[in-house]
Amino acid sequence: MSNPTTARTRIADLGKPRIIIIGGGFGGLEVAKGLKKAKAQVVLFDRYNHHTFQPLLYQVASSGLETSSIVFPFRKRFAKQQDFFFRMGEVISIKPEENYIETSIGGIKYDYLVIANGATTNYYGLKDVEEHAIPMKSIIDAIQLRNKIIRNMEMALLTDDVELMNSLMDYVIVGGGPTGVELAGALAELKKHVFPKDYKELEFTHMDVHLVEAGPRLLNGMSKDASEKALEYLQNMGVKVHLNCAVKSYNGYEVILNTGEKLISRTMVWAAGVKGKPIEGLHESAVTRAGRIRVDTFNKVIGHENIFAIGDASVMEGDADYPAGHPMMAPPAIQQGRLLAKNLKRLMSKKEMKPFSYFDKGSMATIGRNRAVVDVKGFKFQGIFAWFVWMFVHLMYIIGFRNKFFVMFTWFVSYFSYDKSNRLIISRNKDGVS
Amino acid sequence: MSNPTTARTRIADLGKPRIIIIGGGFGGLEVAKGLKKAKAQVVLFDRYNHHTFQPLLYQVASSGLETSSIVFPFRKRFAKQQDFFFRMGEVISIKPEENYIETSIGGIKYDYLVIANGATTNYYGLKDVEEHAIPMKSIIDAIQLRNKIIRNMEMALLTDDVELMNSLMDYVIVGGGPTGVELAGALAELKKHVFPKDYKELEFTHMDVHLVEAGPRLLNGMSKDASEKALEYLQNMGVKVHLNCAVKSYNGYEVILNTGEKLISRTMVWAAGVKGKPIEGLHESAVTRAGRIRVDTFNKVIGHENIFAIGDASVMEGDADYPAGHPMMAPPAIQQGRLLAKNLKRLMSKKEMKPFSYFDKGSMATIGRNRAVVDVKGFKFQGIFAWFVWMFVHLMYIIGFRNKFFVMFTWFVSYFSYDKSNRLIISRNKDGVS
Repeated sequence: MSNPTTARTRIADLGKPRIIIIGGGFGGLEVAKGLKKAKAQVVLFDRYNHHTFQPLLYQVASSGLETSSIVFPFRKRFAKQQDFFFRMGEVISIKPEENYIETSIGGIKYDYLVIANGATTNYYGLKDVEEHAIPMKSIIDAIQLRNKIIRNMEMALLTDDVELMNSLMDYVIVGGGPTGVELAGALAELKKHVFPKDYKELEFTHMDVHLVEAGPRLLNGMSKDASEKALEYLQNMGVKVHLNCAVKSYNGYEVILNTGEKLISRTMVWAAGVKGKPIEGLHESAVTRAGRIRVDTFNKVIGHENIFAIGDASVMEGDADYPAGHPMMAPPAIQQGRLLAKNLKRLMSKKEMKPFSYFDKGSMATIGRNRAVVDVKGFKFQGIFAWFVWMFVHLMYIIGFRNKFFVMFTWFVSYFSYDKSNRLIISRNKDGVS
Repeated sequence: MSNPTTARTRIADLGKPRIIIIGGGFGGLEVAKGLKKAKAQVVLFDRYNHHTFQPLLYQVASSGLETSSIVFPFRKRFAKQQDFFFRMGEVISIKPEENYIETSIGGIKYDYLVIANGATTNYYGLKDVEEHAIPMKSIIDAIQLRNKIIRNMEMALLTDDVELMNSLMDYVIVGGGPTGVELAGALAELKKHVFPKDYKELEFTHMDVHLVEAGPRLLNGMSKDASEKALEYLQNMGVKVHLNCAVKSYNGYEVILNTGEKLISRTMVWAAGVKGKPIEGLHESAVTRAGRIRVDTFNKVIGHENIFAIGDASVMEGDADYPAGHPMMAPPAIQQGRLLAKNLKRLMSKKEMKPFSYFDKGSMATIGRNRAVVDVKGFKFQGIFAWFVWMFVHLMYIIGFRNKFFVMFTWFVSYFSYDKSNRLIISRNKDGVS
């Protein structure tokens, strides 16, 4: 019986420069799209066979959207792009002196390499948290959390031990950035509008949603107005916000905060930080302590000539307005990806590359129906109009007409029905890990 | 730390007769719905928290529909039904003398018990097939097959060993009933319209879809015209149909048929038979060798007074037109469920029950775009009109406006785009089992 693990990348040599992109997130996707008419072979590597629209993962986790609406198969996106090759696999190491990468499916040479592998969850060395908490980075994380939330409710019905019941009905979300804030809002909505209809036998005064943030305010990257309004919205929805609090330990049941306070919950979502996933082989000086890759204003990796890094994976040096690098969000990744595609074309025609400058379109977060906060170019607004802006912008960036349509339709129906209808447990294993 | 495994069913005693339904498939759902205004407490047990529309599982497996379109949470369906209780759990045994069942979440007494737990895959003792083949009974089976099909293609790209490539690209579907026929048609469509766009590097002459049927014709429950037309359609689409062939063994790679012929494939789908899943505790005489439960014309289990069984779980004795029981399909289950709900109400008001008589509305199968076969009350027709009838009937029976709408919309878009867009690998484990 032949063994498929003897596989090799088997990417044809087209006699053109080969540009390899590692990662098909927001940044990598833009590079690949931007190279549509380039005289080059474009090869995209990704662990998954689909792009994931990460900003809406929390809506899958909270039963608001279905899985397939926020993912999109790479091969479908690029079916018509000439000289484009996709390979599902992980890149293990780079040998810059040979212009070669080693991947889980074999090795391959490149002319230009673009590292766009994003970021991974940072547990800051808390091993017990890493073992017991659920991160919110991949579609499987979101499904696992959805399964767990629904299973918790089914189990809470079955006990008259109040402490046990509370541990099943309470949630601890760590991290007051957009993911934490939006997920806390979504859980508060499930508590108010959805679960009381499904679980009439339960008392929902037992259900607490805790949001724990180490800093002094929520949505640290946004304006003070936005932070304050988000806090107010969440508190009005009954979310217990703990500012200036850090998690010291979590054993899957008991959360110990650095204030000495104790929370009891079987479900912790960790959205408190991210770090880079450096790939072996780059110059030591090119990688920061947080595992991100130092790049110049052309997104060229420090100490390398034909290796680039963009988005969350990179920290750009030389942008005076962002001395610590750009925010780890979709917009810088998208803009860097777009420019890098152009710069690669310039490079191949021996033209000079153009330096990156970040155009900050603003940022936003939603906290529940009719409630969002938006900061755009000096304008700050909150409430229902902000909420429409949030929806419009997210719909615009979701790939594919069908996905846009399904998300819009689902939001529309949910708005009038106060419902989130994907309350499904779909997993082979009884422990809820699919 | 309290342990949720100490859970008990904790179902309130309402001082009304308690009707327990085991299983929320087509039959169980109808019983529960039909008891809406009964003066009784209705308790539904199911392993899953959602109803699954099994006839369309194969479309999820072949990337045509998304998971959430063919499942529906029980709690959402029955949110407004008074005195209805759902519990997620498996029933382990019955103690008829105590009117008591033992379940995975504790024990409970009943006044009336309805067994509607359907059927499970029958491997006819072929242990190696059971180990290596994928059945098509649950949503997880369908997702597993979808993951495997897409992963196979990604792996086929990576080899130049032709035998290995063939083993990845070929499919063996066992069982020429509706599931086997419809899945074979869907795979043939992927081969013709979808995969060549995604995998331009592969030669699709390598991809063979085999359909193996032990009997002399496909769709054995339907008319000869339907069988012949289905065979013709499949053969025109390039499916290799093996009639009068049974599988002797399968080691995950090599399929040995009883004719001595050998097929090579890493993917076998087993849709060749089902059997009952009898629950311990019934009178020995009540259970057939195939594990189904013998019932009288009121669906009352032989030898019991207040235990009923419906749908695939049961074999009715006494219907002269169906001496071997009704076909194991949705319509008999639905009709029996509806009547049983009425009979239970009659029983509770000391009225006489009415005997069941099966109204055969006909049967149908689809083989791909514009192609279906329909037998209805003496009328037999095939082709595009049959295909519309097939779609209409399936849409009618899917629960929920949103699901109907999403399925219809997806079919509509697919029809014009020749596309099946859910080509996703979504699984935590690398082996494709989610």
